[in-house]
Amino acid sequence: MIEQLRAIVGPAHVLTDPDVTASYERDWTGRFGGRAAAVVRPANTDEVAAVLRACHEAGHAVVPQGGNTGLVGGGVPRQGEVVLSLRRLDAMEPVDTVAAQVTVGAGVTLAAVQQHVRARGFDVGVDFAARDSATIGGLVATNAGGERVLRYGMTRASVVGIEAVLADGSVVSRMHGLPKDNVGYDLASLVVGSEGTLAVVTRVRLRLVPLLTERVTALLAVDSTAAALALLAHLRACLSTLECAEVFYAAGVDLVCAATGRPHPFGTNHTHPAYVLIECAARHDPSDELMAALATVPDQAGVRDSAIAVAGPAREALWAYREHHTEAINRAGVPLKLDVAVPLAVFAAFEAELRATVAEVAPDAELHLFGHLNEGNLHVNILAAGDRAEALTEAVLTLTAGRGGSISAEHGVGVAKARWLPLCRGAADVAAMTSVKRALDPGGILNPGVLFA
Amino acid sequence: MIEQLRAIVGPAHVLTDPDVTASYERDWTGRFGGRAAAVVRPANTDEVAAVLRACHEAGHAVVPQGGNTGLVGGGVPRQGEVVLSLRRLDAMEPVDTVAAQVTVGAGVTLAAVQQHVRARGFDVGVDFAARDSATIGGLVATNAGGERVLRYGMTRASVVGIEAVLADGSVVSRMHGLPKDNVGYDLASLVVGSEGTLAVVTRVRLRLVPLLTERVTALLAVDSTAAALALLAHLRACLSTLECAEVFYAAGVDLVCAATGRPHPFGTNHTHPAYVLIECAARHDPSDELMAALATVPDQAGVRDSAIAVAGPAREALWAYREHHTEAINRAGVPLKLDVAVPLAVFAAFEAELRATVAEVAPDAELHLFGHLNEGNLHVNILAAGDRAEALTEAVLTLTAGRGGSISAEHGVGVAKARWLPLCRGAADVAAMTSVKRALDPGGILNPGVLFA
Repeated sequence: MIEQLRAIVGPAHVLTDPDVTASYERDWTGRFGGRAAAVVRPANTDEVAAVLRACHEAGHAVVPQGGNTGLVGGGVPRQGEVVLSLRRLDAMEPVDTVAAQVTVGAGVTLAAVQQHVRARGFDVGVDFAARDSATIGGLVATNAGGERVLRYGMTRASVVGIEAVLADGSVVSRMHGLPKDNVGYDLASLVVGSEGTLAVVTRVRLRLVPLLTERVTALLAVDSTAAALALLAHLRACLSTLECAEVFYAAGVDLVCAATGRPHPFGTNHTHPAYVLIECAARHDPSDELMAALATVPDQAGVRDSAIAVAGPAREALWAYREHHTEAINRAGVPLKLDVAVPLAVFAAFEAELRATVAEVAPDAELHLFGHLNEGNLHVNILAAGDRAEALTEAVLTLTAGRGGSISAEHGVGVAKARWLPLCRGAADVAAMTSVKRALDPGGILNPGVLFA
Repeated sequence: MIEQLRAIVGPAHVLTDPDVTASYERDWTGRFGGRAAAVVRPANTDEVAAVLRACHEAGHAVVPQGGNTGLVGGGVPRQGEVVLSLRRLDAMEPVDTVAAQVTVGAGVTLAAVQQHVRARGFDVGVDFAARDSATIGGLVATNAGGERVLRYGMTRASVVGIEAVLADGSVVSRMHGLPKDNVGYDLASLVVGSEGTLAVVTRVRLRLVPLLTERVTALLAVDSTAAALALLAHLRACLSTLECAEVFYAAGVDLVCAATGRPHPFGTNHTHPAYVLIECAARHDPSDELMAALATVPDQAGVRDSAIAVAGPAREALWAYREHHTEAINRAGVPLKLDVAVPLAVFAAFEAELRATVAEVAPDAELHLFGHLNEGNLHVNILAAGDRAEALTEAVLTLTAGRGGSISAEHGVGVAKARWLPLCRGAADVAAMTSVKRALDPGGILNPGVLFA
C-alpha cells in the first residue's frame, strides 16, 4: 500500500517518519488526533484520484486534510488512516474580472486568495481569524462561516463550482462558473459542508464580491441580548452596508481587559451587560448612513453608550474587544468549547436559559459567551468545568436542540459531535444522509467516524 | 389503489373525470402531457406522506405538480402516473420580522407570498412573469431563476429551510431557519432543483430581502453583445444597487414594435444592434448613482443612446420592450424554445456562433434571442424551424456544451432535455447523480423519465 502511494505521488511526498507526520496527526487544540498509516501529499487532481483508487481498492480509510485548523477532529487521523494532505494543490488562476470569479486549488490559504483577488478590486465573501492557515478546500469541506455571514452567507454561497474526487477515484468537475445551471442535482452544494465524507475537493471556483475599502466600525453597549436584537433589527432595516454584527458580554470584556491591559470601553472602569460590535462597508464612506441609523435607534434597543471609528487603528481597537476573547479565555484555562445557534425569535430567552443551565450543571464553572448576533450563533466557552464537561455538553446541546437550534453552527460535527447528531436531525433525515453517504462512498473509506458515530 | 387514495385525502380530492383532470395532464404550452391514473390533492404534509407510502408500496409512479407553469414537461404525467397536486398546501405563517424569514406551504403562489411579505416591508429575492400561477413548491423543485438572479441568486439562495416527503413517505423537516447550521449534508440544497425526482416539497422557509421601492430603469442601445458586457462590467463595478440586466436584439425589438404598435425606442424608426435594460433598486432613490455611473461608461461599451425612467409607468414602458418578446414571438408562430447559458468570458463569441449555427442548420428559420446578461443566459426562440427542430436542438445544445455552457440555465431538464444530460455532465457526475437518486428513491416512483432518460 505505502509502496503504491509512493509510486503515485513520489517517495518524497509519502511521509511516515513520526517526527515529520506529527503536525498532521493532531489538531491545533491538541484535543483530537491519532497515528496515520502515512501522510500523502499529492500534487494535483490526477494524483488525488490515483491515491483514492488505491485506497478504495485496498479498503483503506482516508482522512482529507487542509490547513488543519478545524475544531471538531474532522481532519486528523484516529486509527491508522491515510492522511491525504491537499496543501500542494495551491495553484491560483487569474481573476476572471468579467464573471467576478476565480478558480483556485484546494490547498490555497484563504489569506492567499484574498491577496490575489484584492489586487484586482475584488474580495472573498468569507473571512475569519484562521485565514493564514485555513485552506479553501477546508473552507468548502466544512462550509466555513465567520464574520461576514450576515452579508454574504456561509462558504456555500461563495462556491460557484467545484472539482472533487469521489471515493472510487472518479472525478466530478463543474468548474464553468455558471450562475444559472439547472442541469441535475447540485452536487457542489452537497459536497460543501460534508466534512470529507462524500468526496475530496481538489479545485474550487469562487464567486467574488466587490472590494469594499470604506469601513466604519461601532461598538455599542446595551442593556441585554433582547436590546442587542432590537438594535440589530433597526440597523438591518436601514443600513444596506451592514456587514458584521458581533455580540459579547460583560464577563468577556473584563477578561479581555485584564489579559491585554486595555482600558474598559467608553472610558469607564466598569462593564455593561452586553456589547454589539457592528461594521459597515461600502464603496463610499458609510459613516453618515450609520450615524443617521444610530440617531433613530428605538428605545427598546437600550443603547447605553457608543463609540464609532473610521480610521484603521481606531477600528482595530474596537475589534480587539471581540477578537481577544479566545486568547483571553485560553489564558485563564482550558475551556470546554461549544458552538451553537438558535432562531433569532428565541435567542434572548435562550441566552438566559443557557446561563441557568450551566450554573445548575456546574455551579463552579465560568461561562463566557460571544458570537455572531444575526445568526443567533453563540460560541460557548466554559472554564473550570472540572469533571462536568460531559454533563455540560449534553445539557447545552440538548437545550439548544430543544429550542430549534443547531448543535454545530459553523464548526461542523466532526468526531466531536457525531453522537449528538440525532439531537437536531430526525430519524428520516439521518437515514437520508446515511443513504447518500452509502451511495457515494459504498466502501466507507472517506473520513470514517466523522459525522456519523 | 384509487380507493386507498380516496381514503387518505377524501373522495372529493381524487380526480379521475377526464374533463376535470385535463388541466393537470397537459402543460400550458401544450407540448407535454399524458393521461394520469388520478389527480390527488392532499391537504397537508401528513396526507402527502400517506399518499407516497401507498404509491411506494404499490410501486406506482408519482408526478408532483405545483402551478403547472413549467416548460420542460417535468410536472405533467406521461403514462398513467398519479399526479400529486400540492396546491391545497397553501398556508402562510406570519412574517418572522426578526429573522427576516417566512414559512409557507408548497402550494402558495409566488404572487401571494410577495403580497404577504411586502405588507411587512420585506420582499422575495425571486421574481418572474409566471408569479400568479407558479407555486413556491415548484420554484423550489426547479430552482427557479428570473430577473433578480444578478442581485439575489437563484431560488436555492432564498431557501433557508424545507420540509419534504421522501419516496417512502418519511418526512424530512429542517424548518428552524438557521442561517448557520453545519450539522450534516445540506439536504435542502440537494432537493432544490431536483425536479420532483428526490422528494416532494411540502413547506418552505424563505429568506426575505428588504422591500426596495425606489427604482430607476434604463434602456441602453449598444453596438454589440461585447459592448453590452463591457457596459455591465462597468455598472457592476460602480453600482451597489444593480438588480437586473437584461439583453435583447434588433430583430426582437422590431417584432415587439410591430406586434404591440409601440414606437421604436429613442424616437427613431430603426433599431440598434443590441439593447441592455437595467434596473437599480434601493431604499433611497438610486437615480443619481445610476446617472453618475452612466456618465463614466468606457468607450468600448459602445453606448449609442439611452433612456432613463423613474416613475412607474415610464419604467413599465421601457420594460415592455423586453417583456413583450414572448408574446410577440408566439404571435409570429410556434417557436422552438431553448434556454442556455455560457460563461461570460465567451458570451459575446457564443452569441455570434449561435447565430451562425442556426443559419447553417436551418437557413430559413428566424432566430430571436433575449435573456439575462449577467448570467450569460439566452432564451433561444426559433421560428419557422420546420422539420429542422431536432437538428437545431442538437446543434444549439452541442455548441453550448462545447463552450462550457449549460443546456438548461433556468428551465430545468424535465423530460425535454433528459437525453442531452451527458452533454454537460461527465460520466462520473451522471453516475453520482444516479446513485443519489437510487439512494433516496430506490423504487424509482418519483417523477420517472424526468432528468434521467
